[in-house]
Amino acid sequence: MSDEQTNRVIELAERPQGVPTKNTFRFNDIAVPEPKEKEVLLKSIYVSVDPYMRGRMRDVKSYVEPFAVDEPITGGIVAEVLESNNKAFSAGDIVQGQLEWKKYQTVEPKELQQIDPDLAPTSTSLSTLGMTGLTAYFGLLEIGEPEQGETVVVSGAAGAVGSVVAQIAKIKGCRVVGTAGSDEKIDYLENELGVDKAINYKSTDDMMQALAGACPNGVDVYFDNVGGELSDMVLRLINKNARIVLCGQIALYNKNEMPQGPRPQLMLITKSARMEGFIVSDFASKFKIAIKQLATWFNTGEITHRETVTEGFENIPEAFLGLFSGDNIGKQIVKVAEPEN
Amino acid sequence: MSDEQTNRVIELAERPQGVPTKNTFRFNDIAVPEPKEKEVLLKSIYVSVDPYMRGRMRDVKSYVEPFAVDEPITGGIVAEVLESNNKAFSAGDIVQGQLEWKKYQTVEPKELQQIDPDLAPTSTSLSTLGMTGLTAYFGLLEIGEPEQGETVVVSGAAGAVGSVVAQIAKIKGCRVVGTAGSDEKIDYLENELGVDKAINYKSTDDMMQALAGACPNGVDVYFDNVGGELSDMVLRLINKNARIVLCGQIALYNKNEMPQGPRPQLMLITKSARMEGFIVSDFASKFKIAIKQLATWFNTGEITHRETVTEGFENIPEAFLGLFSGDNIGKQIVKVAEPEN
Repeated sequence: MSDEQTNRVIELAERPQGVPTKNTFRFNDIAVPEPKEKEVLLKSIYVSVDPYMRGRMRDVKSYVEPFAVDEPITGGIVAEVLESNNKAFSAGDIVQGQLEWKKYQTVEPKELQQIDPDLAPTSTSLSTLGMTGLTAYFGLLEIGEPEQGETVVVSGAAGAVGSVVAQIAKIKGCRVVGTAGSDEKIDYLENELGVDKAINYKSTDDMMQALAGACPNGVDVYFDNVGGELSDMVLRLINKNARIVLCGQIALYNKNEMPQGPRPQLMLITKSARMEGFIVSDFASKFKIAIKQLATWFNTGEITHRETVTEGFENIPEAFLGLFSGDNIGKQIVKVAEPEN
Repeated sequence: MSDEQTNRVIELAERPQGVPTKNTFRFNDIAVPEPKEKEVLLKSIYVSVDPYMRGRMRDVKSYVEPFAVDEPITGGIVAEVLESNNKAFSAGDIVQGQLEWKKYQTVEPKELQQIDPDLAPTSTSLSTLGMTGLTAYFGLLEIGEPEQGETVVVSGAAGAVGSVVAQIAKIKGCRVVGTAGSDEKIDYLENELGVDKAINYKSTDDMMQALAGACPNGVDVYFDNVGGELSDMVLRLINKNARIVLCGQIALYNKNEMPQGPRPQLMLITKSARMEGFIVSDFASKFKIAIKQLATWFNTGEITHRETVTEGFENIPEAFLGLFSGDNIGKQIVKVAEPEN
């Protein structure tokens, strides 16, 4: 057990109307629990904050259960096993799973995945070698089906998923155009990730013209992390047989009303195009192969990786709120503690 | 040559704003042409009028070229070869092709297809054994991919394409729900085509409730001939991995502005669903097999067929305009003349 004797939890204090605020969250001091039979005691090391969690704050049935008010928020966490009453795990193991926003917690480790710390930094299992990397991998390759020489547009290209999508599309020999919201991100996309053209949607007056100029051969694959008006513009540029991969709609998550916009159906008919949503768990049976491929690309440097790391359990809400102001580059995680072993 | 010595043509007089009217069309008397080398002289027998032709009246590049103002309208026509300077055709042959709205015309017969009059009535090559049947066949089977026991919703189900879709879906063992706009059509769908539940969208107060009641297990395949608010409602009922086949959007064809509506993207993500447009020519390499299958179903009576036949070349515009007032059941054709042989 660590010197740090206190335990804390972050609960959903209220369902946000529009953009979440600090009042969305509540901190409580609680006891450090004792692991029961078959349970393990975990110490949180890295906590993942992700845009999709906004959806779970709504009281609407979706592909994941909504968070309950006055209950702990849950999300991806890398943790260390401090004590184990389960023969599958030992003290000192590093694991990853959907866990509660607590400094310490006990769980029956059915859905924990062991992480090999020698493969890559353990925090990558929350991003490139975890759900976001897998989301990029399957969304682009299985739904987008990019062919060499095609043009792939990625919105939210500097985000956790987008940055991996952009790099895999380059590996596949595509022309890659990304959009993002700051000059720092544009620089990152063009000079670190090798994107052919990155466009700052905040500082560009005529986005339609900028997109058309960046895609002289039209758009074959649109990997959409953003939705809204930007996507309306990209849709006007699609080629025959284009594939629109619906991954996220961050521009829409904070709207309370059903968002309205131009109907895409006529364009999809005109271009024999496909618009398809997915969730990474649709591809669970292929995770193992994909993680192996992603680790290879990561270790050869074909996929580079940037994390924005916030320090301290107390700063988890702030890090989450930052996702919606467009501040983060790459994957946003919160480092809660050092492992003890 | 027939007794009837006059020839006539119907041209596009002006591009319609909103719903086309009689002023959209102009009749002209012209001479009966002489076939040149390699040409054939054709006499129009059956003329097809189809909703998609509204799109060609717009001055917008689409999957087919727009009609030109002051030029003849073109569309699917069954014709008789009266004279042939081409060894591939003989006088008396019945052919089908994209031809001009003329009583008589000469063409180089490159894209004419010979029809076997013994297989089925020749007018079926404008519908069940032609483009509309093929559209239903490929849209449902290749894009919709219905599985036995799934629920298939067809909008515009009493229309030329929809009525074939509904019947193929029944052959495939699906629960089939159709929408249409008159009690006569509802009767046709339920009592002639064997649709499990047909809903009259004009006389039903709460369509959302009616659709939900007709689809107690949700919607797996939505074959969309209509678009607009009806489709918004169906989208709210889709199951995980649903397929939305975009075939037509007749509710939108007459709008001058880009139609607005609820954005479908979030629903597609939530359900890992696919929305896909197509045009029948995407599947041209498989037409032969499909026509054979459709002919089998037609001759065994598994697919029945209803035509609305208007008589007389002069009534072609009126028959076309009737498509948009929801009057027609099944395929709308115009019988222009009897064959001479």
